[in-house]
Amino acid sequence: MAAKILDGEAFATRLHRETSARVAKLKARGTVPGLVFIRVGEDPASRAYVSRKEKRAQEVGISSRTLVLPASTPLHSLLKEIDALNADPKVHGILIQSPLPPALPNDLVYAHVSPAKDVDGFHPVNFGKLLLGDPTGFLPCTPAGILEILRLGEIPTAGKHAVVVGRGQIVGRPLALLLARKGPGADCTVTLAHSRTAHLSEITRQADILVAALGRPLFLQQEHVKPGATVIDVGVNRLADPADPRGYRLVGDVDFASVRSVAGAITPNPGGVGPMTIALLLSNTARAAEDFSR
Amino acid sequence: MAAKILDGEAFATRLHRETSARVAKLKARGTVPGLVFIRVGEDPASRAYVSRKEKRAQEVGISSRTLVLPASTPLHSLLKEIDALNADPKVHGILIQSPLPPALPNDLVYAHVSPAKDVDGFHPVNFGKLLLGDPTGFLPCTPAGILEILRLGEIPTAGKHAVVVGRGQIVGRPLALLLARKGPGADCTVTLAHSRTAHLSEITRQADILVAALGRPLFLQQEHVKPGATVIDVGVNRLADPADPRGYRLVGDVDFASVRSVAGAITPNPGGVGPMTIALLLSNTARAAEDFSR
Repeated sequence: MAAKILDGEAFATRLHRETSARVAKLKARGTVPGLVFIRVGEDPASRAYVSRKEKRAQEVGISSRTLVLPASTPLHSLLKEIDALNADPKVHGILIQSPLPPALPNDLVYAHVSPAKDVDGFHPVNFGKLLLGDPTGFLPCTPAGILEILRLGEIPTAGKHAVVVGRGQIVGRPLALLLARKGPGADCTVTLAHSRTAHLSEITRQADILVAALGRPLFLQQEHVKPGATVIDVGVNRLADPADPRGYRLVGDVDFASVRSVAGAITPNPGGVGPMTIALLLSNTARAAEDFSR
Repeated sequence: MAAKILDGEAFATRLHRETSARVAKLKARGTVPGLVFIRVGEDPASRAYVSRKEKRAQEVGISSRTLVLPASTPLHSLLKEIDALNADPKVHGILIQSPLPPALPNDLVYAHVSPAKDVDGFHPVNFGKLLLGDPTGFLPCTPAGILEILRLGEIPTAGKHAVVVGRGQIVGRPLALLLARKGPGADCTVTLAHSRTAHLSEITRQADILVAALGRPLFLQQEHVKPGATVIDVGVNRLADPADPRGYRLVGDVDFASVRSVAGAITPNPGGVGPMTIALLLSNTARAAEDFSR
């Protein structure tokens, strides 16, 4: 029996529709939600990501623009730009596209965005609220998008064992905490596994919900998956491919072709976690504008 | 073979000695580390905790005092007291003893302490830095004390499976993150289990390091423990006991008498995690003063 496909594009379309309706209400009350992207340098992947997010933002009625700064921008100039956006009442959300040029310290830059406009959920205060379970913070978009995939895919979570492979700060660690929270859509027993985990396949085969967020191309194979498990693939990896005009193709952390025959449900990649991350960014932006106009 | 006893009192004495030396250096440079306890109301357990911490602070040379406020203190007055301490250059650490009276919202009060003086590690920014792995924050004292027990007890952690039972914000969740971090004294595969976990004993029996932080008296029994595992008991529970003059006695989450015969190493309780929590509070206070005087 082939796995149920957790169609991130279709779920994202549902969330975009909800966000559109919230944006329309805000506009009726005189608030146009505003989102500003900051892109530093000309990384081609960053350009593509930002333009995809801008397009979706416009589709749901969010007013967005991109501030493009040269790769040589010094820290103090970038912080001054952020100050201006923090102070601008027409801007409700600020997203700094990663990666930043190596000379710019990520932590200082992300911590400079006002927590109330941090729709990416990357400010230390928002990470702290996540750990504390304080709902006034913004959740980082990828982990929050995965929770929505489970909800919209009607995957039961309470009392289930979730195994998150990968302990990164943007996905693995926050997702582990969110899945272990009290309440609907959570209440999982959660195992956080990573590169130092011994006997990995014994651990992953316990998972009712298995999340691959380790950044190793096609790493997760059939042998890692318990029959019937739900498998979520967060990875975006470049795999050398001479047949591709770019010289590589993008693949996930999960070997979809092999895993789909044993999993109960699985995200495609692309078309799984990626579109949901954008959907959550826009819903966070609508919330920032709602909070602001209250 | 009986388990090795992880003697928290002895480990705490070692840490207190290190903290004393740091305090002496600070004083030689003209900085007397200052710690202020705020106690609101007359909860007898809180009184006992604060006076124990004050005594230890004095022993290591930290100047400490306790601000006692009536249980009826309104929020704005408490916040004003915190403002004054935040601004006072002689105060390097501020500890608000829990529990607060029910009328005072914990989250607002803890978030009002300057993160640089939050030696308890309870401010959202410090929790966020913990999640992010940013070493400039203060770690909450109980989880940090447990890491020190493992270090001083020479318990290997890298690649080991740690199971934390209990998902509270002060111990379970932060400890799970800390054990899963990269680096010495961590690198564990970590499972966070809790009241909704199915087949708990199957999960806990996988643990090389088993931490009980669920707040249920004598809950963990021999059947939960893999032979040779390290068992850490965080619980402080009142168990009705008519033979005791108070009508109760304090017991942990672990049935020490039954578990010690199967565990490889175990914390006594009292005398395990409790004294280490105080030791970490004082070492955090020394660090706050060091950071301040830099």
